[in-house]
Amino acid sequence: MPAFPFTAIVAQEEMKRALLIAAVDPTVGGVLVFGDRGTGKSTAIRALAALLPKIRAVVDCPYSCSPDSPASDCPHCAQAGGKARGKSHTIPVPVVDLPLGATEDRVVGALDLERALTRGEKAFEPGLLARANRGFLYIDEVNLLEDHLVDLLLDVAASGVNTVEREGLSLRHPARFVLVGSGNPEEGELRPQLLDRFGLACEVGTPTEIATRIEVVRRRDAYERDPDGFCATHAASERALQKRIVAARERLGTVAVPDAVLEAAAKLCLALGTDGLRGELTLMRTARALAALDGAETAGIDHLRQIAPSALRHRLRRNPLDESGSTARVARAVAEVLPA
Amino acid sequence: MPAFPFTAIVAQEEMKRALLIAAVDPTVGGVLVFGDRGTGKSTAIRALAALLPKIRAVVDCPYSCSPDSPASDCPHCAQAGGKARGKSHTIPVPVVDLPLGATEDRVVGALDLERALTRGEKAFEPGLLARANRGFLYIDEVNLLEDHLVDLLLDVAASGVNTVEREGLSLRHPARFVLVGSGNPEEGELRPQLLDRFGLACEVGTPTEIATRIEVVRRRDAYERDPDGFCATHAASERALQKRIVAARERLGTVAVPDAVLEAAAKLCLALGTDGLRGELTLMRTARALAALDGAETAGIDHLRQIAPSALRHRLRRNPLDESGSTARVARAVAEVLPA
Amino acid sequence: MPAFPFTAIVAQEEMKRALLIAAVDPTVGGVLVFGDRGTGKSTAIRALAALLPKIRAVVDCPYSCSPDSPASDCPHCAQAGGKARGKSHTIPVPVVDLPLGATEDRVVGALDLERALTRGEKAFEPGLLARANRGFLYIDEVNLLEDHLVDLLLDVAASGVNTVEREGLSLRHPARFVLVGSGNPEEGELRPQLLDRFGLACEVGTPTEIATRIEVVRRRDAYERDPDGFCATHAASERALQKRIVAARERLGTVAVPDAVLEAAAKLCLALGTDGLRGELTLMRTARALAALDGAETAGIDHLRQIAPSALRHRLRRNPLDESGSTARVARAVAEVLPA
Amino acid sequence: MPAFPFTAIVAQEEMKRALLIAAVDPTVGGVLVFGDRGTGKSTAIRALAALLPKIRAVVDCPYSCSPDSPASDCPHCAQAGGKARGKSHTIPVPVVDLPLGATEDRVVGALDLERALTRGEKAFEPGLLARANRGFLYIDEVNLLEDHLVDLLLDVAASGVNTVEREGLSLRHPARFVLVGSGNPEEGELRPQLLDRFGLACEVGTPTEIATRIEVVRRRDAYERDPDGFCATHAASERALQKRIVAARERLGTVAVPDAVLEAAAKLCLALGTDGLRGELTLMRTARALAALDGAETAGIDHLRQIAPSALRHRLRRNPLDESGSTARVARAVAEVLPA
Amino acid sequence: MPAFPFTAIVAQEEMKRALLIAAVDPTVGGVLVFGDRGTGKSTAIRALAALLPKIRAVVDCPYSCSPDSPASDCPHCAQAGGKARGKSHTIPVPVVDLPLGATEDRVVGALDLERALTRGEKAFEPGLLARANRGFLYIDEVNLLEDHLVDLLLDVAASGVNTVEREGLSLRHPARFVLVGSGNPEEGELRPQLLDRFGLACEVGTPTEIATRIEVVRRRDAYERDPDGFCATHAASERALQKRIVAARERLGTVAVPDAVLEAAAKLCLALGTDGLRGELTLMRTARALAALDGAETAGIDHLRQIAPSALRHRLRRNPLDESGSTARVARAVAEVLPA
Amino acid sequence: MPAFPFTAIVAQEEMKRALLIAAVDPTVGGVLVFGDRGTGKSTAIRALAALLPKIRAVVDCPYSCSPDSPASDCPHCAQAGGKARGKSHTIPVPVVDLPLGATEDRVVGALDLERALTRGEKAFEPGLLARANRGFLYIDEVNLLEDHLVDLLLDVAASGVNTVEREGLSLRHPARFVLVGSGNPEEGELRPQLLDRFGLACEVGTPTEIATRIEVVRRRDAYERDPDGFCATHAASERALQKRIVAARERLGTVAVPDAVLEAAAKLCLALGTDGLRGELTLMRTARALAALDGAETAGIDHLRQIAPSALRHRLRRNPLDESGSTARVARAVAEVLPA
Repeated sequence: MPAFPFTAIVAQEEMKRALLIAAVDPTVGGVLVFGDRGTGKSTAIRALAALLPKIRAVVDCPYSCSPDSPASDCPHCAQAGGKARGKSHTIPVPVVDLPLGATEDRVVGALDLERALTRGEKAFEPGLLARANRGFLYIDEVNLLEDHLVDLLLDVAASGVNTVEREGLSLRHPARFVLVGSGNPEEGELRPQLLDRFGLACEVGTPTEIATRIEVVRRRDAYERDPDGFCATHAASERALQKRIVAARERLGTVAVPDAVLEAAAKLCLALGTDGLRGELTLMRTARALAALDGAETAGIDHLRQIAPSALRHRLRRNPLDESGSTARVARAVAEVLPA
Repeated sequence: MPAFPFTAIVAQEEMKRALLIAAVDPTVGGVLVFGDRGTGKSTAIRALAALLPKIRAVVDCPYSCSPDSPASDCPHCAQAGGKARGKSHTIPVPVVDLPLGATEDRVVGALDLERALTRGEKAFEPGLLARANRGFLYIDEVNLLEDHLVDLLLDVAASGVNTVEREGLSLRHPARFVLVGSGNPEEGELRPQLLDRFGLACEVGTPTEIATRIEVVRRRDAYERDPDGFCATHAASERALQKRIVAARERLGTVAVPDAVLEAAAKLCLALGTDGLRGELTLMRTARALAALDGAETAGIDHLRQIAPSALRHRLRRNPLDESGSTARVARAVAEVLPA
Repeated sequence: MPAFPFTAIVAQEEMKRALLIAAVDPTVGGVLVFGDRGTGKSTAIRALAALLPKIRAVVDCPYSCSPDSPASDCPHCAQAGGKARGKSHTIPVPVVDLPLGATEDRVVGALDLERALTRGEKAFEPGLLARANRGFLYIDEVNLLEDHLVDLLLDVAASGVNTVEREGLSLRHPARFVLVGSGNPEEGELRPQLLDRFGLACEVGTPTEIATRIEVVRRRDAYERDPDGFCATHAASERALQKRIVAARERLGTVAVPDAVLEAAAKLCLALGTDGLRGELTLMRTARALAALDGAETAGIDHLRQIAPSALRHRLRRNPLDESGSTARVARAVAEVLPA
Repeated sequence: MPAFPFTAIVAQEEMKRALLIAAVDPTVGGVLVFGDRGTGKSTAIRALAALLPKIRAVVDCPYSCSPDSPASDCPHCAQAGGKARGKSHTIPVPVVDLPLGATEDRVVGALDLERALTRGEKAFEPGLLARANRGFLYIDEVNLLEDHLVDLLLDVAASGVNTVEREGLSLRHPARFVLVGSGNPEEGELRPQLLDRFGLACEVGTPTEIATRIEVVRRRDAYERDPDGFCATHAASERALQKRIVAARERLGTVAVPDAVLEAAAKLCLALGTDGLRGELTLMRTARALAALDGAETAGIDHLRQIAPSALRHRLRRNPLDESGSTARVARAVAEVLPA
Repeated sequence: MPAFPFTAIVAQEEMKRALLIAAVDPTVGGVLVFGDRGTGKSTAIRALAALLPKIRAVVDCPYSCSPDSPASDCPHCAQAGGKARGKSHTIPVPVVDLPLGATEDRVVGALDLERALTRGEKAFEPGLLARANRGFLYIDEVNLLEDHLVDLLLDVAASGVNTVEREGLSLRHPARFVLVGSGNPEEGELRPQLLDRFGLACEVGTPTEIATRIEVVRRRDAYERDPDGFCATHAASERALQKRIVAARERLGTVAVPDAVLEAAAKLCLALGTDGLRGELTLMRTARALAALDGAETAGIDHLRQIAPSALRHRLRRNPLDESGSTARVARAVAEVLPA
Repeated sequence: MPAFPFTAIVAQEEMKRALLIAAVDPTVGGVLVFGDRGTGKSTAIRALAALLPKIRAVVDCPYSCSPDSPASDCPHCAQAGGKARGKSHTIPVPVVDLPLGATEDRVVGALDLERALTRGEKAFEPGLLARANRGFLYIDEVNLLEDHLVDLLLDVAASGVNTVEREGLSLRHPARFVLVGSGNPEEGELRPQLLDRFGLACEVGTPTEIATRIEVVRRRDAYERDPDGFCATHAASERALQKRIVAARERLGTVAVPDAVLEAAAKLCLALGTDGLRGELTLMRTARALAALDGAETAGIDHLRQIAPSALRHRLRRNPLDESGSTARVARAVAEVLPA
């Protein structure tokens, strides 16, 4: 069954923008999506991955290495070497679901018991982090995961490398992926330390317009009754969006971020009292990625304005004197610091 | 001992309707049955399964694959291939009980220890999810199960696929079943996140009419003293109901759901403030299945009215200002939004 | 040392009647005995079992199958088949104690480790449930057992079959037994869900008459100092009671339960507000068994009156406005609904 | 180093009497000793065991079976049979300490891993219960032991048989011993259910007389500096006490307990409201044993008076209206019911 | 690096005296040192051990047995026997640190896995208790250790024997050592039951005189910069103290403790209301050891006065009406009972 | 990618000074860095390590032993001996991250399972402590680590030796490293016992000047976009700082600490009421190291003033009457005791 088309998703603009930015520049860090149940978060990730151009990968490499990456970065390719490594094929961008209750050993990888028992060899059995390399790792209800596992996932996502130190194994393998977590703020919260390490945080809600609701239900039904027919009607818009992403990736390296934008970002963070400088670094990177998606050569204050809620709402300290929500506080700061 | 006949079950109309709908369209999601102990919930599931037409299944396939399904969807049939897969026989619709205290490995399946020890092979030993394929999985007192297991079961029920990532095993097998859970609301509740993922939720109670109570006890005693004789007296009504289900399944694909019905569903959900759009999707699907059972070609507002309590009562947010129960709140909303 | 004679037990009439009913019709469900420590609960079970006629069992069958039962119901007898199965001998009715701290694997049965290690075979090692087949399973302080184990025992007792799903084993074996649990209500209670699944619940207390107390102590001392002599003095009354039980078993199938009795049972349950219909089913069955013990051909209102406290006291909901105990509430309802 | 002589123990009369009674009639049940730290409880047990006449035991039998006991009662002797069983030697009465943190498998016995691994045999490795057979099992700070282990020990002590159901093992072996537990009431209490199963409970305290204290310290120092010399000075009194015990054991079977004594015991228990009849049974047995120690042919009211505190103080219900301690309450009841 | 010299330790007189007493008479029981962090507790133990004369030990014996001890007391020497046992060498007094997080099996000893796996033999692998034999076992922050491990260590320290009952092993080996525990009273306390089993308890504090503090820092720095030079300057005082200890050990057996001293000890304990008689026994033994260190032939009241705080402060019951600390309460009792 | 240059770090002077001191004299103990998230703590450690001169290490030695150290100190080099040990190469100073969730066995080292299984040998598999030898061990969020692991790390860091007592292994290997821990005081605190064992504790904060913030973000971006180019522009300052460190290390042995400085340190600690004398020892050592970095021959009061906050702020007792923070309290004491 083909994935639901990204361009057929009704509303939820903030989430779609955050995902597109992460697709253009994965270094902005993971994306956290908060909000009501049943609002299509998981569908959107699959839709985005299906939209992205396929990638070339070394045949049999459990990390789906690009044939253009240094073989030495990958324990499999380093060992295969030469011709063995030369063979590559085209695969879809991986999307890996972290199932609830997945154990640390299946996430990180573990000793290959079969080989240990039958051949007495200490071999590594790659885990979900290996499979997610070059793609997306999706965690539903990330707030229900144990803290240390979230921390571990954020570490790996940040460094692009999975360092394994367990059961006598000691190795590193590439694990570059966009971490996407969804959560329901009513069911326990993430620690501030963890929140701060996600690049972007966006909110999704149930649409309140009857027409929008009917449209969502109708599209969902149409898709489920005839997936191929439904996808065909969105093929053109999908191709267009794919081209826009590819172009943005190419343009990214040359988009300038002028000092005025950096200063505006710093003022915004100072006004909101975010800890450390991750807020500013994220604002700079996402403004640049957004500019690239817009086809602009320079990131501007307007890009900052658009992305500020997603980049900052999860970095605020609780202010006992200010009972407004994070989104409202960011909006107010934007209005004051960056008046239109 | 033959199962108690479905058509001999006294009263409990809401539960019977919900089970029939799930039998016609398993994609409406699991059925949750709340209510008093000793009201025959488990009997009803077995009764329904016994009523359904037998199915053809590949001989020796632990997943009871249909000989008409793609062999590639099933790890057993894919390996067997050719003639081996060709052999099929007729079996009753499976009903699997999840015993209290069942461990995750027996539910999901696990490494086959015997083969691992004797032949050094890493083979998969299918679990209860495999056995439930194409049938029913019944969980008594689902509210006593650990959340992560409920979640896992709902995931599998929703996707129809069991994805195994454990003990170095990594495989997928078909696991299409109707999940039926019973619970006593007085013994701890399910998390809203989990409730919402069940398609239908119905309530059963102890009958309060003396005549009904005597009738239940008398039928139960008659059945236990002479199961075959008792079943014979209900054979005709059982055959009639089976025909009705088979006809509804065939008609399902062509039943229309007009925009007025979708709009009514959306208004209902909006009035009740359900999160996300699962409420509307379920209303649409169950109205369609009910229409099919009724032999209608179009789902109507009246179908919505009938099914709304089962489809929505478990999706309401707790409203501190409204102390009436969920059922009453749904009824009130139906009366306001869909006046007769 | 021979068991203490059942007919030598002083007082405790309610408990003795409940045990006799279960001996006549094991389908009435388990018996729960509440009350003071040191009141001879365990002695009574052993006494009853010793009183019952010996049974014929297939030699070497770990489930003590009757040679008259279908061989296919038993994993051992099915495999033995033919002549091997034909050999039978006479054994006493089994009484199995569930030791505190017994692990689930010893109760249910488990993988036979010795055969797994030495012969690489996955064989089943039957547990206490196997040994209890056709007899009694006694649990002292059932309220201290883990809920899931009580639930499992009640499941097996109700169905007469032990379904094993663990360690890669998957089998069913006969496990028809009367479950008898004792408990001290002061040490934590059973969940209502579990209470309701016991057929009968009776109360025992320390006798308050000096003469009775001395009689108990004197009989106990006489028995301990000269067991054989003591038993000899009760041999005749034991034989008489055995005959009565055997006769009642034979008569059970033909005892009628008139509609007036069913209606009275329903009214009683309605007056007490018991959930579900297990109360009525139990009243019907126990009235029938009691009639059979009395040598009557029809169960009457008087039988209901006698058995109502044992059949209903554990099925009442807590009524905050009625502080009288369960026994008093049942007595009041009996007085109102079934005036003498 | 020889044990400290029992007759050299200063004061602590109640404890010494309770231990002597248990030595004469082990069926009175375990002895519980409550009281201050450092009051020589452990010393007293060892002293008593050293005082008792040595016993004859089958050579190599891990249960120290008597050559006169039926070989069929013991898994070792049953297997050895014939001549092998015939060899016996003389050994001291065993005293086994249950070390804090002893695991259930070392107490009960367990699978013999060495034989399982090297010879693939499922053999039983006897535990501390085996070693305690025919002697004493001492548990310091019994209130710190897990309830289920105390329960298990009391079960075995009461029945004289250790029934093993674990790791695929299923056997019974003799385990007749006097259970002696010490405890500090300030560190958590035993459940009433457990307390009630000990036969006797006595209190020990730190002597408050200077002269007594000096005498204790002086004897202890004398013993530690010259154990053999110290023991020599008490040899005669030790021999005398041994003779008294041996005589009491022989006389025990013929000591009468008149009805007046039974009635007094019942009145005492009724006055104190003890649950069940264990109180009366213990009073009868201990009065008989005390009479035997006194060389009397009939147990009298005076014996009851002496032993009542030890036999009853641990069987009282907490009485919120009576704040006096258990010992005082028993004393008061004795004064009222059995006036001197 | 040579150990810091005992005689170079500045101040902390109470701790030094307690350690010297334990070195002279290890049967006084363990030493507990309470007080501030960074006050050189660990240094003092090492210093004392380095000061003591080296000991002769059987070569290869894991328990460092003395060649003069009975070979039968040691599982190694008993097996080695004859000449093998005859070989001995000179070793320093062992000091064993119990690392935080040490598992019970490393403390007590455990099954030797290597031999079990490679040779199928059930051999014992000695633990830290074996290594501490004839020396010191030091536990930093003993109050953070689990109670049952402290209890076990005190048991072994008191009996001088390690009794192993685990993993099918059953053996005893010599384990005579002085247990020294340090603790910070602010971080959770030991149970009174455990406190009472330590022989001596002393307090250390941070010096408050500037000159003393500078002296400590200066000596520490001098020692760290030139260990050998620093030790050389204290060699003479170390030799003198060693001689004094050796002389005291020889004299210990002949030092008298007159009745007046025993009576004074009893009065002191009675005044303070210590439980049991361990207080008096410890006072007697430590007064004797102190007299021996002083070269006296008789222990006197003055020795009692000096040692009373260390011997008693950890044996007081909490007195809600007396808020002064333990040390002050002991001092007051000494002033009243033993006026100078 | 080359490390970010140490000299390119903007602001955070206290942290940089503490790290430089630890680089000059590792015996000052670990460095604890408290403060906001995202302030570049991890970057600074890596930067410092990259700045230090490379070290010579024995080829294949898992502990990276210096060829000049005694071979006997290292289990690997002791075994290799002779020529094998002679071979050495040049390696960067190791920096080891302790990953969250690292198990004790990977930190300490463990039994080499592969060799145990395939060759039946009990060999040691070195852990992270081995790898950190001669370098830095960095723990992010040290306050989230279990206490016993922090304790263990501090023990090893203090002694420079890792003592392994587990799984039947018993060995010691060199583990000399600077322990650097970062923590967020808002997320639970370290126990005072642990805090006190760190040599230095410094605070980092988010810069509040717009210009500084922009400079940090700009440098970070410049480094990430062109690492090599960025490093080239800081090469000269890096070389200069390296020379300064090397010179300070050489000078360290000869820097004098006059009595006036020791007295000032003692007064400071006395004024602040720090427990024990670790405060004074640290002040002395860090003043000496700072003097060495300054090229001075004598440590002065001014060095004390500079380093006092880092050396003392984590050693203060909570003073309920003084609500000012630790840093303010140290500053006040410095102003009083050491007026400028």
